[in-house]
Amino acid sequence: MSRSPGRKQENHKISRELFVLTYGALVAQLCKDYEKDEDVNTCLDRMGYSIGIRLIDDFLARSAVKKCRSYSETVDMIAQVAFKMYVGVTPTVSCNSAAGNEFSLILDKNPLVDFVDELPAERASLCYCNLLCGVIRGALEMVHLAAEVTFLQDRLKGDAVTEIGITFLRKPEDRKHRRN
Amino acid sequence: MSRSPGRKQENHKISRELFVLTYGALVAQLCKDYEKDEDVNTCLDRMGYSIGIRLIDDFLARSAVKKCRSYSETVDMIAQVAFKMYVGVTPTVSCNSAAGNEFSLILDKNPLVDFVDELPAERASLCYCNLLCGVIRGALEMVHLAAEVTFLQDRLKGDAVTEIGITFLRKPEDRKHRRN
Repeated sequence: MSRSPGRKQENHKISRELFVLTYGALVAQLCKDYEKDEDVNTCLDRMGYSIGIRLIDDFLARSAVKKCRSYSETVDMIAQVAFKMYVGVTPTVSCNSAAGNEFSLILDKNPLVDFVDELPAERASLCYCNLLCGVIRGALEMVHLAAEVTFLQDRLKGDAVTEIGITFLRKPEDRKHRRN
Repeated sequence: MSRSPGRKQENHKISRELFVLTYGALVAQLCKDYEKDEDVNTCLDRMGYSIGIRLIDDFLARSAVKKCRSYSETVDMIAQVAFKMYVGVTPTVSCNSAAGNEFSLILDKNPLVDFVDELPAERASLCYCNLLCGVIRGALEMVHLAAEVTFLQDRLKGDAVTEIGITFLRKPEDRKHRRN
């Protein structure tokens, strides 16, 4: 199953409701397949990663953005361009470390859980939207940025907001030094 | 250090690319779970059915359409309003029987297979987009229309177009008679 060539001038949008319900079916299937929440989370992250490494080409082609010069610029790009383009919302960005390599994307409302009220008691450790973390991680890796991406807060778990943490693992300078 | 986005109208759309890749992950997971294509097809149909019976409320609320008076009107509504709203394309409709209960939705291009060229040889009987059939079947059932919905042609299998067949199983008149 490989990517089809030929770009088109069509409508690039699809209804969020259909996506949300289809995503819900995917999570439900994984919950059937794996007993442990951690295994479901890992699987969603891995699937997201595979999506991210393909989606980045589409993103770079359609957004026509310039190369980011800092982690801060990169995270702003994810929030203001990528999230807007793919999920239809714009998270707030905050920087969490003096070192400048830890950031959060904060979503007042998570559009992917429109039809989900709360997690069932037996699935309390499920990171329902973990696919998103994988997508970000995969896309970043394709532009040579290693990052850890995890949910820090989740409204589905009773938190006030949904917060995705992005920790960049190596500074570009570090990589240059290592090569020399 | 936080940057808040401006308030905006709620966007009900998401990127088709993200949907298509997420749907691909779902189908791939089911192919891992089930050896037989038929079982994957059944599972996709069943998932679609669950989605359809929920999506119909959203459809009726957002489309504000009037009650359809015939199968023909119903299928036109599916093609011109529902497909447009949820998938972003408008299939051509054809009526396939003198009895007026068999129709086809014909898609020159199936937007759900943007990243798929062809099915792998070992998955030749897979109805990759069978979720759609289930969605239509579930949604119809919620407006008291029993129907069989299946793929009649599929470009992924080398056909010239993708064709979804809808056969209505009982005339509304039949149901009235049965109640009396």
